[in-house]
Amino acid sequence: MLANLLLEIGGSMSTLGAGIGAGLAVIGAGVGISGVGGRAMEAMARQPEIFGKLQTAMIIAAALVEGAALFAIVVCLLIAGNA
Amino acid sequence: MLANLLLEIGGSMSTLGAGIGAGLAVIGAGVGISGVGGRAMEAMARQPEIFGKLQTAMIIAAALVEGAALFAIVVCLLIAGNA
Amino acid sequence: MLANLLLEIGGSMSTLGAGIGAGLAVIGAGVGISGVGGRAMEAMARQPEIFGKLQTAMIIAAALVEGAALFAIVVCLLIAGNA
Amino acid sequence: MLANLLLEIGGSMSTLGAGIGAGLAVIGAGVGISGVGGRAMEAMARQPEIFGKLQTAMIIAAALVEGAALFAIVVCLLIAGNA
Amino acid sequence: MLANLLLEIGGSMSTLGAGIGAGLAVIGAGVGISGVGGRAMEAMARQPEIFGKLQTAMIIAAALVEGAALFAIVVCLLIAGNA
Repeated sequence: MLANLLLEIGGSMSTLGAGIGAGLAVIGAGVGISGVGGRAMEAMARQPEIFGKLQTAMIIAAALVEGAALFAIVVCLLIAGNA
Repeated sequence: MLANLLLEIGGSMSTLGAGIGAGLAVIGAGVGISGVGGRAMEAMARQPEIFGKLQTAMIIAAALVEGAALFAIVVCLLIAGNA
Repeated sequence: MLANLLLEIGGSMSTLGAGIGAGLAVIGAGVGISGVGGRAMEAMARQPEIFGKLQTAMIIAAALVEGAALFAIVVCLLIAGNA
Repeated sequence: MLANLLLEIGGSMSTLGAGIGAGLAVIGAGVGISGVGGRAMEAMARQPEIFGKLQTAMIIAAALVEGAALFAIVVCLLIAGNA
Repeated sequence: MLANLLLEIGGSMSTLGAGIGAGLAVIGAGVGISGVGGRAMEAMARQPEIFGKLQTAMIIAAALVEGAALFAIVVCLLIAGNA
């Protein structure tokens, strides 16, 4: 009886970390893609003739942030799944 | 019996750190790639004729941040896997 | 018996620190490379004729930050491995 | 017996501090080298004729920050090794 | 017997503080040298003819910050060694 309870408490601490970690990862993705995407908009407004190239560069930089964020969220998902 | 339980609680504290660490790593990646990528956009709008060279420099700097972030997330994954 | 259990809990507290530390190190790398790399982009747009020299100076400064970050992540990995 | 166990838990608290401390040191290095290196880039773009001298001054200031950061990370490594 | 154990746990809390303190000291050094070094770069670009005098003044101010940081890290090292 006590065994199951302590086990449950342990698993809950892992899941706590997984939840907080997933949230922090999205904050990171928000900061990163905001900085890149927002300034890409300003740049596009300034030089509309190179719109396509700016969009390509924006997607490259945003994809780097996105890759790290998704990897971290998958790690948090594994933590939550194993707990 | 109690042994396995306490073991489980211990492992959960490690996993708590792994989840939070993975999230913090993505915040780092976000701040870093945002600063580099965002200003690269502004620079591209200012000097569209060196677009290709700016994109190369942007990818070099972003890759340095990305490398540290993915390394830290892998460390967190190892922590979560061993816990 | 109890010995191994408490040992395990102790090791878990170390690993908690390792995970958080690895994440904090990437925040440091992000702030540092963002400041250097981002302003390098602006400088390149202003003086495209010294593009190569600016890129060299950017990589020197970014490498200093990267070196400290990777060293700290390796320290965290050692902590996690020994725990 | 119990003695060694409590000793171990004590050592783990030290190591927790070592991991967090190493991460904080890299944040310091990032802030410092970002400020120096980033403004060096701007200065290089403004006065390209003294590029070499600015790069030397940048490396002197960045090395001071780097030295303190690596010293602190080594202290954290010693803490982790002795714990 | 128990006395020594509790003493040891107390010592570990000291070491926890030593690790975090060393990291915080580097953040201080980073903020300080960033402010001095970064603005020295701007000043050099504005008045290149007094480059040498600015570099000397920058090193004096940065050394003051560095001295305090290294002193604090040595204090943390002593705390860790005695704990």
